[in-house]
Amino acid sequence: MKNESGFCNVTAIIRGDALEKVERRLQEIGVNGISMMQVKGYGEYTNFYNPEGLTSHVRLDIYTAAKCCDDIAQAIMEVASSGVPGDGIVAVHPVGKVYRIRQRKAVGPDEL
Amino acid sequence: MKNESGFCNVTAIIRGDALEKVERRLQEIGVNGISMMQVKGYGEYTNFYNPEGLTSHVRLDIYTAAKCCDDIAQAIMEVASSGVPGDGIVAVHPVGKVYRIRQRKAVGPDEL
Amino acid sequence: MKNESGFCNVTAIIRGDALEKVERRLQEIGVNGISMMQVKGYGEYTNFYNPEGLTSHVRLDIYTAAKCCDDIAQAIMEVASSGVPGDGIVAVHPVGKVYRIRQRKAVGPDEL
Repeated sequence: MKNESGFCNVTAIIRGDALEKVERRLQEIGVNGISMMQVKGYGEYTNFYNPEGLTSHVRLDIYTAAKCCDDIAQAIMEVASSGVPGDGIVAVHPVGKVYRIRQRKAVGPDEL
Repeated sequence: MKNESGFCNVTAIIRGDALEKVERRLQEIGVNGISMMQVKGYGEYTNFYNPEGLTSHVRLDIYTAAKCCDDIAQAIMEVASSGVPGDGIVAVHPVGKVYRIRQRKAVGPDEL
Repeated sequence: MKNESGFCNVTAIIRGDALEKVERRLQEIGVNGISMMQVKGYGEYTNFYNPEGLTSHVRLDIYTAAKCCDDIAQAIMEVASSGVPGDGIVAVHPVGKVYRIRQRKAVGPDEL
């Protein structure tokens, strides 16, 4: 998909117990804007030991330059993969425009 | 909007009391990845009995093949519509790429 | 980015203490659909007084006509900017389609 703004939004749904490792890794590679929220969900398979199938995961959202999306997805997968169903997904979304509230203006992908 | 990746992201804001019916319906039609979070919000009209106008809703996010988005939206509306303002909305978003963390690789829309 | 649906999704990450002002301002300019959730995050800089760097912010999501996105972003920035790092960001996303659950049908950007 063409993404003329030069930005993308990386959304990751990860296991709660992988959060600390993922946060550390993202800071190491220079990602300095992350928002996090708890989500409940059903994943790839229902968990055999959890008949309700509902798991507790964390959703991360990152706004970054489009050229960095793949590296960020790879970095998350490296530390968040346990090899077991329920590890979650990473999705990359197009973004039209990003504004920084402090400066009250639209910013470019290299200014984030 | 062109969506060359073949994926879409369906976001639904529904009443909290419709969640169980929606979950059951989505599982019936084979949706096997859903993340859910509680949201507060203002909707179509302010609720006469709730002068603050703030309601408690649930947000669902589903990543799926672009060709399934409309069926999922219809399935959600069938069971979540009470006919009263505040029933919420369903929005379909383009998605650039989806990775499965367990496999540490990008997946296609038929692999979700 | 071309946005043929005529809709956009405005996502704002703001300080928790700016929420009331932002809500009031958005209602003044006629925005009548907002969903809100609490997020934790790392922002532009680590807060010197908060060595963990983690802040408590609110995420707002608004679905609106594409032509209104910039006005909404400006309105949020006007009241949410304190001039200090951590004020947050506003991002505009393309949207493929919006359905109103009450009416069980897709709506146009002037019907929201």
